[in-house]
Amino acid sequence: MATNSALILVLLVLCIGSVFADWNILKQIKRKNEGDETSSNNLKNYCESWRINVELNNIREFDVVPHECIDHIKKYMTSAQYIADSERAIEEIRLYLTSCCSLHGDGKDAWIFDVDDTLLSTIPYYKKHAYGGEKVNASSLEAWMKSSKAPALEHTLNLFNEIKNKGVKIFLVSSRRETLRSNTVDNLIDVGYHGWTGLQLRGLEDEHMKVQQYKCEERKRLVNNGYRIWGITGDQWSSIEGLPTAKRTFKLPNSMYYIS
Amino acid sequence: MATNSALILVLLVLCIGSVFADWNILKQIKRKNEGDETSSNNLKNYCESWRINVELNNIREFDVVPHECIDHIKKYMTSAQYIADSERAIEEIRLYLTSCCSLHGDGKDAWIFDVDDTLLSTIPYYKKHAYGGEKVNASSLEAWMKSSKAPALEHTLNLFNEIKNKGVKIFLVSSRRETLRSNTVDNLIDVGYHGWTGLQLRGLEDEHMKVQQYKCEERKRLVNNGYRIWGITGDQWSSIEGLPTAKRTFKLPNSMYYIS
Repeated sequence: MATNSALILVLLVLCIGSVFADWNILKQIKRKNEGDETSSNNLKNYCESWRINVELNNIREFDVVPHECIDHIKKYMTSAQYIADSERAIEEIRLYLTSCCSLHGDGKDAWIFDVDDTLLSTIPYYKKHAYGGEKVNASSLEAWMKSSKAPALEHTLNLFNEIKNKGVKIFLVSSRRETLRSNTVDNLIDVGYHGWTGLQLRGLEDEHMKVQQYKCEERKRLVNNGYRIWGITGDQWSSIEGLPTAKRTFKLPNSMYYIS
Repeated sequence: MATNSALILVLLVLCIGSVFADWNILKQIKRKNEGDETSSNNLKNYCESWRINVELNNIREFDVVPHECIDHIKKYMTSAQYIADSERAIEEIRLYLTSCCSLHGDGKDAWIFDVDDTLLSTIPYYKKHAYGGEKVNASSLEAWMKSSKAPALEHTLNLFNEIKNKGVKIFLVSSRRETLRSNTVDNLIDVGYHGWTGLQLRGLEDEHMKVQQYKCEERKRLVNNGYRIWGITGDQWSSIEGLPTAKRTFKLPNSMYYIS
């Protein structure tokens, strides 16, 4: 009788005890999560501000992604948000093309595309180089470009074909060096790009210029040859800014590196 | 005896039962959260892409914030992230000012500031108008501006004073109408701004021009008067783009409205 009562008591204590145990564990988990959130939110805000100010062209000429923001940039550049942001930019170009341009159809309507991170993605390269967190090593980057393994940015490939089908001449103006021409052409064709009118790469004579000036010189040449540049699509402000400009310009997101 | 055994059995069942009940509830909560996350993430990606493409100047001339994104823009414009993004832009101006400019100190060094959402915040007004989700009603907005109750953007106020203390002349170029001059001056002084060299507002003669052209005309006038414009700070691309430009321009975030 006594042993039974004791057993009942023990079971009662166990029941009540287990409920309180659960309660305490839940409280501890909650407290821990809240703590982690606060500190990780501060870093997230800081790194997101860095990224946004790069996109706004307020932060310029950076050599590397700040060490503490490598994970944030990696997360963005490999996210559905990066794809969504790029696709929305492409969608806005489509919208613009439906209303913008009284195309003359005389072979002088032109559109300019940047190559890297506009037509082709360099993410597979930067994935091995801390997503911009390591200072760019030109020879290692060029070795990768020589392998012609850069994938297409699918949304840009679709736009490229739509613009070409409108009879607009497409000019690719890239800061890649002339020595990479055959590898670049192979890469572009392998992933589905063909039918461009010009592919401008940097010759030795262009290397004394900053990239923005070099790209302006190319646009000047096109304008002097009677082309009407309806638009520019690029991931760097240096592909878009300066004179002569285009009727509209479109900036794709890219916070892994800065080319001036 | 039998009753005791029965009681022991009941307590055992209760103990085991309570554990399984907890387990099931936790599983249900987890499943529900995952479901909600997927759908809300899609809308979040969509609205964040809209906002980013506004900041990149890929989306232009919008009348209202898309209805489905009002909550997202409200969340951003009232967030620590908006403050962090703005403060980082201001911090980059400070950095630029330490190295950019061989100030002549001849009274011809100049800096241009936009007024709304650069020096003063219109968030208290847009808070009552769906954060840009309602088409702007000029007379209701001007009535609010007449009340001179716009708060300062603290980080810009600090920068304003630092630039002034360097002996750089500050010019405020705003798309507010000339009829709002006294209310604008009262508001600026009330919140701590003073000592600017010029406050340019839109006269009747400027109303045939788009805001960007009007602001370019003002910069032309400054340049013709011998001023060196070291920088422009504004929240709209129309405050920053066009010729003559400044040595550097800085864009503050604002996705509530678009002024062309």
